[in-house]
Amino acid sequence: MSDIKVIEREELKEKPQGPIGFGQLFTDYMFTMDYNKEEGWHNAVIMPYQNIEISPAAQVLHYGQAVFEGMKAYRQGDDIILFRPDENFKRMNKSNARLNIPEVDGEFLLDALQQLVRLEQDWIPSGQGESLYIRPFVIATEPYLGVHAATEYKFMIILSPVGAYYGDDQLMATRIYVEDEYVRAVRGGVGFAKVAGNYAASLAAQTRASELGYHQVLWLDGVEQRYIEEVGSMNIFFVINGKVVTPELNGSILPGITRKSILQLAEYLGYEVEERRIAIEEILSSEYVSEIFGTGTAAVISPVGSIRYKDQEVVINDGVTGPVTQRLYDEYTAIQEGKKEDPFNWCLKIK
Amino acid sequence: MSDIKVIEREELKEKPQGPIGFGQLFTDYMFTMDYNKEEGWHNAVIMPYQNIEISPAAQVLHYGQAVFEGMKAYRQGDDIILFRPDENFKRMNKSNARLNIPEVDGEFLLDALQQLVRLEQDWIPSGQGESLYIRPFVIATEPYLGVHAATEYKFMIILSPVGAYYGDDQLMATRIYVEDEYVRAVRGGVGFAKVAGNYAASLAAQTRASELGYHQVLWLDGVEQRYIEEVGSMNIFFVINGKVVTPELNGSILPGITRKSILQLAEYLGYEVEERRIAIEEILSSEYVSEIFGTGTAAVISPVGSIRYKDQEVVINDGVTGPVTQRLYDEYTAIQEGKKEDPFNWCLKIK
Repeated sequence: MSDIKVIEREELKEKPQGPIGFGQLFTDYMFTMDYNKEEGWHNAVIMPYQNIEISPAAQVLHYGQAVFEGMKAYRQGDDIILFRPDENFKRMNKSNARLNIPEVDGEFLLDALQQLVRLEQDWIPSGQGESLYIRPFVIATEPYLGVHAATEYKFMIILSPVGAYYGDDQLMATRIYVEDEYVRAVRGGVGFAKVAGNYAASLAAQTRASELGYHQVLWLDGVEQRYIEEVGSMNIFFVINGKVVTPELNGSILPGITRKSILQLAEYLGYEVEERRIAIEEILSSEYVSEIFGTGTAAVISPVGSIRYKDQEVVINDGVTGPVTQRLYDEYTAIQEGKKEDPFNWCLKIK
Repeated sequence: MSDIKVIEREELKEKPQGPIGFGQLFTDYMFTMDYNKEEGWHNAVIMPYQNIEISPAAQVLHYGQAVFEGMKAYRQGDDIILFRPDENFKRMNKSNARLNIPEVDGEFLLDALQQLVRLEQDWIPSGQGESLYIRPFVIATEPYLGVHAATEYKFMIILSPVGAYYGDDQLMATRIYVEDEYVRAVRGGVGFAKVAGNYAASLAAQTRASELGYHQVLWLDGVEQRYIEEVGSMNIFFVINGKVVTPELNGSILPGITRKSILQLAEYLGYEVEERRIAIEEILSSEYVSEIFGTGTAAVISPVGSIRYKDQEVVINDGVTGPVTQRLYDEYTAIQEGKKEDPFNWCLKIK
């Protein structure tokens, strides 16, 4: 058990009734700790969820020195589980390293997170596709306008009860726009890290795709604008000739924890899996591409029903969710929700 | 005159004595305004410089939706001038457009800025190389964890009296490390915009260069890692065969206002100027490259004395500031400081 100060709030908020959406509603408490050169990470405290005070010169506001993670807690009957939280803190430290943010202690944070989630367990919803979304993040707080790695940071965890990311239509097949102008990331950059600036950079393309009637952007690589990288803020998978295939990690693709888990699960279920470079032409011209889907913590699995690239539109599996996608979704969420055994030890029971 | 509410502070801070450094000291007041969908930009107010309150779910902290500008006010005897401030607000709107941030009213902000700087005129230092650094910026404040263009923003201007960016050694020739692994930006990305995430992404390379004993990183293009783009957070110039040459704007290079002004000034002084693609090999192998310097608002002009690329180190102009660099620096700062006439109408007199 970790030794964390708890500041209690006088009154708890009302829990939501009805559909809860995604990421707009926050629980009663949050975890924070601070960093400075002298003390390292210190001042760990669970306190009432509230606004923070920050200098207008804080480096995060000017230079984007910020990383985050996303994970989920689920109800499994009377138990509460965290899904692969150790992976998130490991990845956070990779993001930290890329942005010169001091390393965090993953074990300590995992303890702190468990304490926070136990305290907030009444906020974990139990409906279909619902969970408690967990957002750990680090921001540079030093008030200084020189461009350098900050000397002061704040780490926080906030919690948000969430429904399915795409609402009731979770497994509705989406229409995808292949972006051939805007670039999300390039090798040598920060695309592999969960870094704030990656997401701001993606907004213009997402907006254009929406205006054109598409749900998500498919991102091509930054060098040749030819190889498939991600879809929206998810990793992407293809079923090609019955094989489950995803772009290999190359420095500009986020190493998704759902991506990694789906690769393991697919193999466990007997599918052949492959990580390799995938050119957009291969997907557009191959009659063997039978399914496409995105993966990510927020949306879990999101099927793709059609792809538009320049003047060409290709419909996948008649525009509906395919059998491999459906099976992976069912098996994966069954493990998360405790409806099936967890052969991988992904679920960390915390109560 | 703009109609802006002013909240006075009870006590003014002490003005600094002695060297003032860069970007750590802020004046008594700041300007803020807010944006929401219903009211647009509203609530313009000049208030005491102070911490701001922000939701821990504010989008800027997670997704880096933030842009900024940098400009300077100078004393010219009894007058106070702003240097090309209209250019900054124009560029801010280009950055805003790239990140789906609502446009700001440049004319209104120029009025607001003048009012703020007049109020804070006693903070403008008058020593050699000193000025009042002006930092306008926009941050996404909507408390929402979905990745989308925020619906709420805050615009602020904070002011910081500054000395020369590199201290007393302003015209000391710097040693430059050509980065051949990390990439700052790629066409189709956000490199041309003054976007927070660009700067966080640059820190690791800057740290490595410092550790290797170099002052700054020279950035190559993201596609071929061959063409020269920027140096540190500055644009870069070469004197080749007596001609003043800088990389052409290509979507990943920041269109610096100092860059633009130095091109104009050099031409005015009779130099031939050229904007074109410049490969790193050309610079390393050409005996005709006589000088190199960086340009930016903070540092103005920063000479380069040597360049390291992989195993090769090339010394430029015997490692000291060259005559063209010196002349451009002298003429440029003389205009800013009012010691020479301003044939370009760059200086906006505000008092």
